[in-house]
Amino acid sequence: MANMMFDLIKQDLEALEKQLLEAVKSPVELVTEIGTHLVTAGGKRLRPAMYFLAARCGKSYNLDRAIHLAVALEMIHMASLVHDDVIDNADTRRGKATANARWGNQLSILSGDYLFANAFYLVASNNYGTRVNTQLARLICDLSAGEIIQNKEIYTACCDVDEYYERIAWKTANFIAVSCQLGGDVAGLDEKFIDALYEYGYCIGMAFQLTDDLLDLTSDTEKLGKPAGNDILQGIATLPTIRALSVSPDKDELMNIVTNRSMTDADVARAIEIVKASDGIEFTKAKVEEFLDRARKVLPEEMPAEIREAYLMAADFIGGREF
Amino acid sequence: MANMMFDLIKQDLEALEKQLLEAVKSPVELVTEIGTHLVTAGGKRLRPAMYFLAARCGKSYNLDRAIHLAVALEMIHMASLVHDDVIDNADTRRGKATANARWGNQLSILSGDYLFANAFYLVASNNYGTRVNTQLARLICDLSAGEIIQNKEIYTACCDVDEYYERIAWKTANFIAVSCQLGGDVAGLDEKFIDALYEYGYCIGMAFQLTDDLLDLTSDTEKLGKPAGNDILQGIATLPTIRALSVSPDKDELMNIVTNRSMTDADVARAIEIVKASDGIEFTKAKVEEFLDRARKVLPEEMPAEIREAYLMAADFIGGREF
Repeated sequence: MANMMFDLIKQDLEALEKQLLEAVKSPVELVTEIGTHLVTAGGKRLRPAMYFLAARCGKSYNLDRAIHLAVALEMIHMASLVHDDVIDNADTRRGKATANARWGNQLSILSGDYLFANAFYLVASNNYGTRVNTQLARLICDLSAGEIIQNKEIYTACCDVDEYYERIAWKTANFIAVSCQLGGDVAGLDEKFIDALYEYGYCIGMAFQLTDDLLDLTSDTEKLGKPAGNDILQGIATLPTIRALSVSPDKDELMNIVTNRSMTDADVARAIEIVKASDGIEFTKAKVEEFLDRARKVLPEEMPAEIREAYLMAADFIGGREF
Repeated sequence: MANMMFDLIKQDLEALEKQLLEAVKSPVELVTEIGTHLVTAGGKRLRPAMYFLAARCGKSYNLDRAIHLAVALEMIHMASLVHDDVIDNADTRRGKATANARWGNQLSILSGDYLFANAFYLVASNNYGTRVNTQLARLICDLSAGEIIQNKEIYTACCDVDEYYERIAWKTANFIAVSCQLGGDVAGLDEKFIDALYEYGYCIGMAFQLTDDLLDLTSDTEKLGKPAGNDILQGIATLPTIRALSVSPDKDELMNIVTNRSMTDADVARAIEIVKASDGIEFTKAKVEEFLDRARKVLPEEMPAEIREAYLMAADFIGGREF
């Protein structure tokens, strides 16, 4: 995460790591072991970071009060990644062994369930109130529903640009938006301010997911911790591919590849070639910039200057990230 | 469920079915479809029934108020069954196709997540308060942890009688105990009354699980909706087997079978034969009766007579059930 942004919430993020390790401790040794593996495997902590910044927009800031919700957000994210990795049959994430590669699908499914429940336990027992509890539960409903839609349509390449936006909104953007919103809630900000934070998070989230989609096509195993073209291999057509499917002269060939459940690595490489030869990458990059611009513009005037600066840097970071 | 007990909460259970169908509705059609399949596939509704009876122990009873928590309890149960069926690779449950058999593992994992989250959403948005929210989250943590312990030790037959009790307490008894406890909470009963309800639920839950274990060995596909000896085949040593492993003259042969991941159907049949020839079945039946007696005795004096009668019938039902 960009340096200055990090400085501002450095102690928050340090506390987060400690509390995450505490939170995954269980009387059941194996639960602790899997949870610790997941926490120490790292991650950008984007959701807690967005949340902490929002929580610091209020008149006073109490880390001891704010921390539990941050931990819950990251645990929900971890839980959903654990289940995703089972679903995608992924061996590595961020270059490290996934829980399913190490402990098998069965224990991974159960560990994900444990993490979801543990997140709720943390939030429920720390009295954030009905609104926070409800938003958090709604968030996981939306997250699962988004994944369900995506999963239902693998290898069909059937969605258009607008359907795709809707899908990644459910899956990613809404999560980051709610992280910002909940920070605003904890800070006791007014509705208008909180709505702006939500909108910022939504735009940042859309840009983040689209950058993810781009990196999946343009990066390499070393930087990404997984092979390029993984989305295509998994049957998921992301925006660059969807665009190429509509404008490329080789769109029929591309369609044949992305709807083929037995596609080879060579097919994947050819699909990437077709997408790159079209304006799919540029089209997506332009959309990323559009969302980032909207994110920058929506930040309210009354936001403290150093927080605004950090949120702007987060937007720059997401626009320029390579991993 | 036994008739008189059913009469007392007939309208509650009818409302439950309606509200369950409402609760699984989602803007995502497939979510509604899977949820509806799960609800209409039926079930004993034991947890909501235990909850409703407890909720009726108070000075006044408001079904509209009580219903959401009952729906949440059954949804949590459904979610955990959906994940269990993925984990066990089960094709049928109660004689009907499982979600994983019909929609695949991936959508089933996500549907389970959706159901868990939806249960929290229902409870959070209906303001039952911190205590209820916390207990519900704790319940799913315990449930997952119990499954994790069980899963970790499949094909090892390594647990003794006391460890086994602890395991089924986490997995089953605690769930039914919390269902009773939450009913008492909603009814505004005093702590002592609620503790007694918890204890009743715990004992009933232990007896229920042990009966399940017995039925798995002694029943048939027609009654059970799954083949006999399924636990052994899945690598799970239940109480009758654990007992036989300690007292049977053929305990070495039994141990060889239950720890063999490639056991055949003939091996399973032989294992059942060995367990049946030992006192494993009688030993377990005696334990069931012990737990049921404790359940009957713990019901508090001040409990309304018709509720007490219903709880006593529930104990009889669990002792005598054949499916």
